[in-house]
Amino acid sequence: MDQHLNHVEEHFLGSDFIRDVVIGMSDGLTVPFALAAGLSGAVDTTTLILTAGGAEIAAGSIAMGLGGYLAGKTDTEHFESELAREQREVREVPELEEKEVSEIFRKYGLEEEQIISITETMKKNPEKWVDFMMKFELGLEKPEPSRARKSAITIAISYIVGGIIPLFPYFIFHKPSTALMVSVIVTLIALLIFGYIKGRFTGTSPMKSAFQTMITGGIAATVAFGLARILT
Amino acid sequence: MDQHLNHVEEHFLGSDFIRDVVIGMSDGLTVPFALAAGLSGAVDTTTLILTAGGAEIAAGSIAMGLGGYLAGKTDTEHFESELAREQREVREVPELEEKEVSEIFRKYGLEEEQIISITETMKKNPEKWVDFMMKFELGLEKPEPSRARKSAITIAISYIVGGIIPLFPYFIFHKPSTALMVSVIVTLIALLIFGYIKGRFTGTSPMKSAFQTMITGGIAATVAFGLARILT
Repeated sequence: MDQHLNHVEEHFLGSDFIRDVVIGMSDGLTVPFALAAGLSGAVDTTTLILTAGGAEIAAGSIAMGLGGYLAGKTDTEHFESELAREQREVREVPELEEKEVSEIFRKYGLEEEQIISITETMKKNPEKWVDFMMKFELGLEKPEPSRARKSAITIAISYIVGGIIPLFPYFIFHKPSTALMVSVIVTLIALLIFGYIKGRFTGTSPMKSAFQTMITGGIAATVAFGLARILT
Repeated sequence: MDQHLNHVEEHFLGSDFIRDVVIGMSDGLTVPFALAAGLSGAVDTTTLILTAGGAEIAAGSIAMGLGGYLAGKTDTEHFESELAREQREVREVPELEEKEVSEIFRKYGLEEEQIISITETMKKNPEKWVDFMMKFELGLEKPEPSRARKSAITIAISYIVGGIIPLFPYFIFHKPSTALMVSVIVTLIALLIFGYIKGRFTGTSPMKSAFQTMITGGIAATVAFGLARILT
């Protein structure tokens, strides 16, 4: 019983909310950090870095938030259109759908008489048959109705929270090189912590996830820094 | 038969490659565009806009590409760990797994004797039983081995291609306000075309997708523009 409980719990952990926080915060911590680092190599005052950083956080959070909203809406529409299609197929070409059900079960080693018995039962209840095809043939589950809106808000807020961390030192220190140094330290620590927590939720080893996340941010910032140097 | 063929085709269209192009290009077209627009309201020369834009494209493409790589790796690890768990459960607590199989089929209206017949067959072939649980209980499919690397490259390149479009006018015109005007026109057209094509692949109405995508980019750019004005 214990094992079974653990099992259910793990599914809960990988929830949509966590996924959205990870999507928003991964980019929010990395891109503004790298942009600010890149500009530190190219300008003399932190005002411009803050302006660019602020504009990037605004743009990034809105773009990603609305992107999440549209993705959620697309999922719902995709589900509805596939549902309508399956309903039509079960009604109009039941023999093809029957063949699809049979193929699914044949793969798992069921015998022909079992398969025939299953398809006969399905045919008696077309609604459940459609449900079965949606989940088992297409792998689609009905999306939660308020999903798109929640997803948009979660991603945008996570992006903003993530983005403020690397920019904060540029508010406090006015010399770009000093602010950059503090920003690098603060952000690498934030990336480590975020990666560790992310690892706990996604089931990857937390330490491994912590270092992977930190290295991703570090590489992005280093390349952006180098490119900004070249461009100016 | 025709219907059935269409069916298969639609699955193919929503492929991982297309999904990665959409992920990279959505943000690539939007964020550098909005950042450049935001800075146009705050600086006098396009050099700085190009520096910030270039740093943002570098940072964004690397962060998103590596993010895609890590997501792909996490999927693989998640699959492997769940596989090991199901194998263990089928071996150690088969009666619980049997109950899970029964619950799955009960939901679809199968009768008890059919369910018992199915679970008996499953027990004879534990390997296929595990396959069945992976797909039908957990909804997991074995990820393609080179998926993470391909995903990273596709996302990064799409981000770069998307990001160059709105920045290009700032190379040509040296007055920020002129470059901004051209960038707005070019990018809104690009967002319309990209949204239209995206709609065709995701099954949303292409015209609706075209306008949604354009409006997302427009809103992000407008807010970034306003914020940059306030910050300077």
